Amino acid sequence: MKKVYQVPYGTKDVLPGEMKARRSITDAIINLFDRWGYDEVKTPNFEYAETFGAGSQVDFRFFDRKNNLLMLRSDMTAPIARLTATRLNDGVKVKRLCYLASLYRYEEIQAGRQCEFEQAGVELLGVKSAAADAEVIVLAAEAMKAAGLKSFAISVGHAGFVSGIAEMAGFGAKETAQLKIALRKHDAVALSCLAKKCADPKVADIIENLLFLQGGAEILERFQNSALGEKCSAALQELQQIFELVKAYGTAEFLSFDLGLYRSFDYYTGMLFEIYLPEMGYPACGGGRYDTMMESFGMECPATGFALGVDRIFLALERKNAVDTCCCRDYFVAWQKDALPKAIVEANKLRAKGCSVELAAEAMSEQEAKIAAGEHSCRQLVYVK
Amino acid sequence: MKKVYQVPYGTKDVLPGEMKARRSITDAIINLFDRWGYDEVKTPNFEYAETFGAGSQVDFRFFDRKNNLLMLRSDMTAPIARLTATRLNDGVKVKRLCYLASLYRYEEIQAGRQCEFEQAGVELLGVKSAAADAEVIVLAAEAMKAAGLKSFAISVGHAGFVSGIAEMAGFGAKETAQLKIALRKHDAVALSCLAKKCADPKVADIIENLLFLQGGAEILERFQNSALGEKCSAALQELQQIFELVKAYGTAEFLSFDLGLYRSFDYYTGMLFEIYLPEMGYPACGGGRYDTMMESFGMECPATGFALGVDRIFLALERKNAVDTCCCRDYFVAWQKDALPKAIVEANKLRAKGCSVELAAEAMSEQEAKIAAGEHSCRQLVYVK
Repeated sequence: MKKVYQVPYGTKDVLPGEMKARRSITDAIINLFDRWGYDEVKTPNFEYAETFGAGSQVDFRFFDRKNNLLMLRSDMTAPIARLTATRLNDGVKVKRLCYLASLYRYEEIQAGRQCEFEQAGVELLGVKSAAADAEVIVLAAEAMKAAGLKSFAISVGHAGFVSGIAEMAGFGAKETAQLKIALRKHDAVALSCLAKKCADPKVADIIENLLFLQGGAEILERFQNSALGEKCSAALQELQQIFELVKAYGTAEFLSFDLGLYRSFDYYTGMLFEIYLPEMGYPACGGGRYDTMMESFGMECPATGFALGVDRIFLALERKNAVDTCCCRDYFVAWQKDALPKAIVEANKLRAKGCSVELAAEAMSEQEAKIAAGEHSCRQLVYVK
Repeated sequence: MKKVYQVPYGTKDVLPGEMKARRSITDAIINLFDRWGYDEVKTPNFEYAETFGAGSQVDFRFFDRKNNLLMLRSDMTAPIARLTATRLNDGVKVKRLCYLASLYRYEEIQAGRQCEFEQAGVELLGVKSAAADAEVIVLAAEAMKAAGLKSFAISVGHAGFVSGIAEMAGFGAKETAQLKIALRKHDAVALSCLAKKCADPKVADIIENLLFLQGGAEILERFQNSALGEKCSAALQELQQIFELVKAYGTAEFLSFDLGLYRSFDYYTGMLFEIYLPEMGYPACGGGRYDTMMESFGMECPATGFALGVDRIFLALERKNAVDTCCCRDYFVAWQKDALPKAIVEANKLRAKGCSVELAAEAMSEQEAKIAAGEHSCRQLVYVK
């Protein structure tokens, strides 16, 4: 097929029905964020490549006229950190920001996974507290509900637990990196190999089983009792605090812990989480605490946040037939030859009343008008003679 | 300044106040388009370069992994035409589509002119009629009003009038192209030179003065009476029909004619128009009829439409101090140390009532809470002990 008839690999057109449903989802989510105190911002679709730190995906790159390397953004956390450090450094300590943005990553495409995709997310900047972490987890759950999803599971881990285990195992930089990659890839074999490099049998056992340390709040207590050293203990204590607060919000039913959870971004320093849907094999939402990233932009500032995949949420709703894709209008106003001025006056009147009106763009018979009104999903026909 | 602190040339961050105002503008416009029967669609931010025909701006180009040339879209008319021809070719003759999209063109930046900018627009496809042309002109005016602008001027011309004059002047392809460029650039000297190449003194006089053939509907009649040949006469008659319909809509007060109007796109074949604001030296909106573009996408289909510049509309509103940039919330809920679970219950209650609530992310004294509530633009403080 000629290229002129196609969209590029990994991109897609959103047609009217899907767009209608997507807009109602994103409107509901942005509105929710606003009601929780999050101010919406917008950043450019491309940035200097330098804005994205080591470990970021840099797939769509090009040069500007002065030979600077630009890239289509692959993540919103770095741009929001840049914006906050450079444009919102106004003395107000705590900032709540949110966004709706298109992102770009090279992916092997499949349902819900495209090279161009849309995320809605929040960042809560300026404070390191369980209060902040619990807030973003609960807000993510509220966003799923606002989008129309009632059944989902929130899985919470902690970057400090994983680094604590690596420390206790006596791992250097190389093995620690291997450990994190193994966790990201859910690679039990690699974990088993790493466990063999660890002298302490208790720690080796944890590494061996790190993909399966999942459960309710009781799991925190269990590991808290096994004396895993200061770093792990602090991580478990933070998760315990977060759990208590999520309970106060009334959202604990969705929550479980996964101490081997590790997301594909290197910048997380504390709590991290993902949300799963029964309709889908990959997370619809992910986030966590990143207390050191802002330093790259010249500002010391702890932060926590999440992003949710609009395409994935739409797909999940579609799979359970829970999307309203009807682009219906109240009236179709059609007209006989020479009756257009009268039809315009009629359409004006209906529009002034707040009705949605599609006005025929050419003369037609009453019979043709009946068919057209149906084709255009209009509830009522007004035929002007 | 280090690049990591900057956005690329010609792009900008939209901060909370501006974003709030922009969202209310774009929501109002998309909602208006919907009520007039236009279905929203979305296309990728980049396309194969082939999608954009000769004469398009192709400034931001890059290659994909298979060495296909991609480009950030510089215009939405071609992508919508592609989408309609390839995805919506379902037998329904007339289609009304709309969009809100970021576009990319290399520009010498100035207020209201960026390399990345946002447009909202409509395309009415499938019918060649004065009814369709009048509808899009009136809808553009309604969009300006919906955005909060009451004072603006719509200038309407016709591509057929300009080509008719070129034909009467006996111009070949080269001089015709020169004529169009001179009109785009408002280059009176170039027009004067072209006029000298024309034997017929009546036509030479029109070319010489083409930048000044502006006025109300009376100008149409004046040129209709001067026997300018079939093509010009048909163009003038179309404009007359459009004017009568715009009058029926009650929008004639905004309209005037400019027979030398020629926009920077080669694809217009009929009526074309621009909307000017007193606050700004360049058009906030532009559009027209393009009956041949769809052929490049394998579909014969007349079409008409317009796009308006969201950045320019925001700037105009800002210049007349008519934007509401306040990101205010109803409640700031702050809490004494250890009172967070109680504060969460309080915030839950207020949110359940539909109030917007920002919950403090750390413990603070009542005095600190008063300051924080002000900094975060919350109307009322609830302090939980």
